[in-house]
Amino acid sequence: MKRIMLTVAYDGTNYHGWQLQPNVTTIESVLNETLSTLLKEDIRVIGASRTDTGVHALGNIAVFDTQARMPADKFSYALNQRLPEDIRIQASREVAQDFHPRRQESRKTYEYKILNSAFPMPIYRLYSHFTYVPLDVVSMQRAADYLAGEHDFKSFCSVNTTAETTVRTIYDINVEKSRDLITIQVTGSGFLYNMVRIIAGSLMEVGRGNMAPEEMVEILKACDRTKAGPTAPACGLTLVKYEFMEENVLGNTTG
Amino acid sequence: MKRIMLTVAYDGTNYHGWQLQPNVTTIESVLNETLSTLLKEDIRVIGASRTDTGVHALGNIAVFDTQARMPADKFSYALNQRLPEDIRIQASREVAQDFHPRRQESRKTYEYKILNSAFPMPIYRLYSHFTYVPLDVVSMQRAADYLAGEHDFKSFCSVNTTAETTVRTIYDINVEKSRDLITIQVTGSGFLYNMVRIIAGSLMEVGRGNMAPEEMVEILKACDRTKAGPTAPACGLTLVKYEFMEENVLGNTTG
Repeated sequence: MKRIMLTVAYDGTNYHGWQLQPNVTTIESVLNETLSTLLKEDIRVIGASRTDTGVHALGNIAVFDTQARMPADKFSYALNQRLPEDIRIQASREVAQDFHPRRQESRKTYEYKILNSAFPMPIYRLYSHFTYVPLDVVSMQRAADYLAGEHDFKSFCSVNTTAETTVRTIYDINVEKSRDLITIQVTGSGFLYNMVRIIAGSLMEVGRGNMAPEEMVEILKACDRTKAGPTAPACGLTLVKYEFMEENVLGNTTG
Repeated sequence: MKRIMLTVAYDGTNYHGWQLQPNVTTIESVLNETLSTLLKEDIRVIGASRTDTGVHALGNIAVFDTQARMPADKFSYALNQRLPEDIRIQASREVAQDFHPRRQESRKTYEYKILNSAFPMPIYRLYSHFTYVPLDVVSMQRAADYLAGEHDFKSFCSVNTTAETTVRTIYDINVEKSRDLITIQVTGSGFLYNMVRIIAGSLMEVGRGNMAPEEMVEILKACDRTKAGPTAPACGLTLVKYEFMEENVLGNTTG
């Protein structure tokens, strides 16, 4: 028995998110079915980030256990021949038997994209949120700077959370504009449910002048979801990168 | 009666190209139907670039004549409320009664995108061509430089062309790489049928070492389609910009 880690990219448009649910197609259900058929075993993957309906990923993580003798790096090729074209494995490797992607120290990077122009642009429509209200990117960056560091992000978390603690660390948060496309890039130790979309929704309120950048301080202090901006739509969000501390990943496999 | 010019953006994935054809949905057919319903007149647009099936546009051009009293700049808003979300008007304005988009001096800019990585990336799959064979961007740019300027591009034109002359001018041609995405950007006075896709296919042959950059000189001289590389797939191609000489557009409307 060995444990394989997959780096999974997907276009979330046609999926009901990552997590297994009855009667709908999810990334997890497709991976389980495809792996089970390929390996003739009953495979159940463990996902790192359970992204919502419509959220995209360049590199989410899944692990699973198998008896198969296939070399670890060949799983990506074998799976990509069988997966629908909106899911593609970017890498596969062996990890320690006890490696669990959600219990491992990691850094996640998300991008939230906003098309800020007079009219929507069709080729961006599935991968960005559109608004014609002009956004001030400089104010948005100033607001974002207040969110960097370790804070209680309870105000930036869906009230439906089951998290034990709402304290998280944002290592890096940048707001950049290229032509009409604004990208909010956030790297952190972990994110609460809807946290990046609520941050994006709040920064947009700042960008259109409805909130001052300094208000982020009050919102953080309040620990009250109603003080922050709205949850920005899912389609603008992409999980870009999931990084583990190298020693944890390799752990027992090298020992 | 006035003539209105539309700047039309679309995701070409679900269309049989621009041009009206029986029994299939094209950009032209959707524009004609939407305009005719909106204005209660029998509207037939004249397109600038008749893009192929699967080709995208950020700014193709269409003109049409109408009796409607609506201010010219309001057509974009009225149309966008009725068009499917993969077609969006970016601008509308009045032009001279005799303005014909294909008979006007203009500069067109196309981009051909190639994802050059080990595996396809789902969110790019509809807007780029994927190849895992490593491409040498420096050689591709050297080859591209031979194509700049005025040449007989017969070798880079589909044999099905009906063009009177195959001489065209390329003002600018650049090959750039950002992460795994290679973009070939070409600006010219006009392009022959399939010309940008045959240029892209030929530059890819150079990029993978099957052709030397200098061979472009021979290929141009040959005036023989079989000497150039293959026609690269449509989905990688986007018509980015269509510029008219300002005086021509305004012509009689300001007089």
